[in-house]
Amino acid sequence: MANLDLVLATLDADRQGALDRLFELLRFKSISTDPAYAPECARAADWLVAQLQELGFEASSRPTAGHPMVVAKARVARPDAPHLLFYGHYDVQPADPLDLWRTDPFAPRLADAPTGPQIVARGAADDKGQLMTFVEACRAFRAHGGLPCHVTILFEGEEESGSTSLPAFLAANAKELDADLMLVCDTNMWDRATPLITCMLRGLVLEEVIVKAASRDLHSGMYGGPAVNPIHILAKIIAGLHDDKGRVALPGFYDGVPELPEEIRAQWAALNFDEKAFLGDIGLSIAAGEADYSVLEKIWARPTCDVNGVVGGYTGQGSKTVLPAQASAKFSFRLVGAQNPQAIVDHFRAYVRKMLPKDCQAEFLSHGASPALALPFHSEAIQRASRALATEWGKPAVLAASGGSIPIVGLFKREMKMDALMVGFGLDDDKIHSPNEKYELSSFQKGARSWARILAALAAQGAENENEAG
Amino acid sequence: MANLDLVLATLDADRQGALDRLFELLRFKSISTDPAYAPECARAADWLVAQLQELGFEASSRPTAGHPMVVAKARVARPDAPHLLFYGHYDVQPADPLDLWRTDPFAPRLADAPTGPQIVARGAADDKGQLMTFVEACRAFRAHGGLPCHVTILFEGEEESGSTSLPAFLAANAKELDADLMLVCDTNMWDRATPLITCMLRGLVLEEVIVKAASRDLHSGMYGGPAVNPIHILAKIIAGLHDDKGRVALPGFYDGVPELPEEIRAQWAALNFDEKAFLGDIGLSIAAGEADYSVLEKIWARPTCDVNGVVGGYTGQGSKTVLPAQASAKFSFRLVGAQNPQAIVDHFRAYVRKMLPKDCQAEFLSHGASPALALPFHSEAIQRASRALATEWGKPAVLAASGGSIPIVGLFKREMKMDALMVGFGLDDDKIHSPNEKYELSSFQKGARSWARILAALAAQGAENENEAG
Repeated sequence: MANLDLVLATLDADRQGALDRLFELLRFKSISTDPAYAPECARAADWLVAQLQELGFEASSRPTAGHPMVVAKARVARPDAPHLLFYGHYDVQPADPLDLWRTDPFAPRLADAPTGPQIVARGAADDKGQLMTFVEACRAFRAHGGLPCHVTILFEGEEESGSTSLPAFLAANAKELDADLMLVCDTNMWDRATPLITCMLRGLVLEEVIVKAASRDLHSGMYGGPAVNPIHILAKIIAGLHDDKGRVALPGFYDGVPELPEEIRAQWAALNFDEKAFLGDIGLSIAAGEADYSVLEKIWARPTCDVNGVVGGYTGQGSKTVLPAQASAKFSFRLVGAQNPQAIVDHFRAYVRKMLPKDCQAEFLSHGASPALALPFHSEAIQRASRALATEWGKPAVLAASGGSIPIVGLFKREMKMDALMVGFGLDDDKIHSPNEKYELSSFQKGARSWARILAALAAQGAENENEAG
Repeated sequence: MANLDLVLATLDADRQGALDRLFELLRFKSISTDPAYAPECARAADWLVAQLQELGFEASSRPTAGHPMVVAKARVARPDAPHLLFYGHYDVQPADPLDLWRTDPFAPRLADAPTGPQIVARGAADDKGQLMTFVEACRAFRAHGGLPCHVTILFEGEEESGSTSLPAFLAANAKELDADLMLVCDTNMWDRATPLITCMLRGLVLEEVIVKAASRDLHSGMYGGPAVNPIHILAKIIAGLHDDKGRVALPGFYDGVPELPEEIRAQWAALNFDEKAFLGDIGLSIAAGEADYSVLEKIWARPTCDVNGVVGGYTGQGSKTVLPAQASAKFSFRLVGAQNPQAIVDHFRAYVRKMLPKDCQAEFLSHGASPALALPFHSEAIQRASRALATEWGKPAVLAASGGSIPIVGLFKREMKMDALMVGFGLDDDKIHSPNEKYELSSFQKGARSWARILAALAAQGAENENEAG
């Protein structure tokens, strides 16, 4: 196995080469949503294939109904070494509005900033810069005897346009892409000095309810009073979903919701997250939701119920004295821990039915139900990656969570039963999807070093287990 | 003053003449909403002017920005005789869909039905047949010495298209149109044998509320939990408007709501209104609203609060994980008795503001506020009209109310401070606004006799008062 210090030294020595290679990749206008750029997507994929072949991977560009997938495999001599699947995407968002870019979005450049040099280009952070941190780590291992783990790489070209081809591709190539753990480099650091591992993603249940009352719209003068109003029923259903303390009032809703380990809670508290600034930025000043939790806990580790849309009756200008025949709302539930999506659906529908007058009906539409995703905070992979990051950055990695789902991670969990270790080096001010997107040069360079350390740490896990067994 | 028996005998003797005249009026295609029929509207107005001049009225067709108004005046020798303003409209709804008419909608005919002959044509009931009952009563008085009261007649030609020209016309001609009491013949009987006086119309307050939370739409994954959801706030506002017994829970809402006089409640109960059929017809089976009142009381004599429209967030197909910046709803309050519209607005807005978290705002839009309209059940006019109708029909008139507003009546009350005596001879199955509209021949003939009796009764009121004074 390669000596990690030599690998890191090689990364440091080849910084200019690494930057040149990233700039080459950034020059492809691989905008996936616009068919006009399909040839650019194909060229970016081919470039990546060539890169990976040069590093000893068995790599190819695989056609799909959309843009090609890049699949690359490197196997190491130790058969029981951990097998990692690295996921990234080479496609980018459109660069519009072009006139807000200070320079050509596809002519990457280094810009000086008070905090250090920045790589400016569309895709610098999302996701070309991030995926190249991993590729560069692989390159450095190549110079010193090869990778310490089995590695499969999957780069898709449709992440910014819905990953349309991915589910079928995973289903058709499940065996080839199978691995022990998925690595995802599409997330951010806590701040420019503090690494972060995203350990949990909230799950999501999406339900729509149509409350049906009278058989037709009614005149509110002729029927107002004795005829039930479905908007009132729906309002009671929505109002009854939370108690006075901001808790979700559905019976059974909190089954499977874990309390945060004390040390994680302490770590999050120590982050000194500025709740006032967070709320102030969106025009609010009072934290809603469960009374006994911090804002960070609410977003990262607590389940929620929200109405994302409601409509019923007349919604145009002015007034109309109508009692509508129906009213509907779209509900989303963010899930954590072991909350069972199907149980949530069942509890919710039972609650709605109970709220209905006997002469009203509810129609339910399901728009998806997926559980929370989590690697346990105490899992080997997280502990090892955490220590590796701490060594590189000189301070502990935040073991964080994400309030939103990352569809790709859910998809791999569903289709491949694979957990994901989510480590990324983006910053909140990288302006992804916006003009003048940038990636810190330090993110790129220390990111590559971080992956080298993480690969070594995960490989050691396998080796130590082997020693224990032997 | 004319002998009422002679007037009634003349009406009976001239039945064919009256029917011929109504048919002439029904042949005009006076569809007010379609500009193509403007000449037909003008011709209908001119025909009415000629009719009224023939009866001794000083009558003319007055141009407006829309269709002309017919104004006619007859003054009697007794200066202190009551002064009545009769309102009707000569315009009609479009006849579409034409293929559902069994005969030409503008070729009036008599059709035999199990319950007696019917006049079939567009406008037969709404409102040409009804207004001609009054004109024929005037004609019969003319044959016997003239009308017993001062009478002003106003026929408009835009009732079916929003009475657009009427407010300005009333304002410009307030003095000329002033009278002691307005007579309106645009309502129905209880059933084909039972006359009905509409004594009360519910008032109407129309409010719109926009609840504003965050300064922009938010991602429910990134903000769900700590960021307040305006749809939830709005739902609580709506849900809190009614208590468990169906009463409106706004403080002060019931100020000015009268209890029904015991004899009126008894009369309504004796009508044996079929609540089950009423609700079943619209697909419902349980009466909503205040627990302690009958369906008829709820519609006719109780105030309500209803949401007529609600919208917020994403309302298209599928789902979107958005926390909207705002959500809005349109509210209507039906008022009775002495409920003060402005007080209701004030109570409502205070309630909404109280329900708002401190970092949310509410924007209010008013779409109108008008009080309930009522002639007291015990007023001379209603008592006299009631006895007149009872004599004609052989059974007491129902002293009823209407759950909806009749805009024209509110307008006259507002602009002219005039109360309205609403008596009409339509039936619920007249199919107004629908194909094959009809008016019972008995409605037309006994309607004219009813007006003759009512005019005589109201004239006697003035005369008796004079006697008392003298």
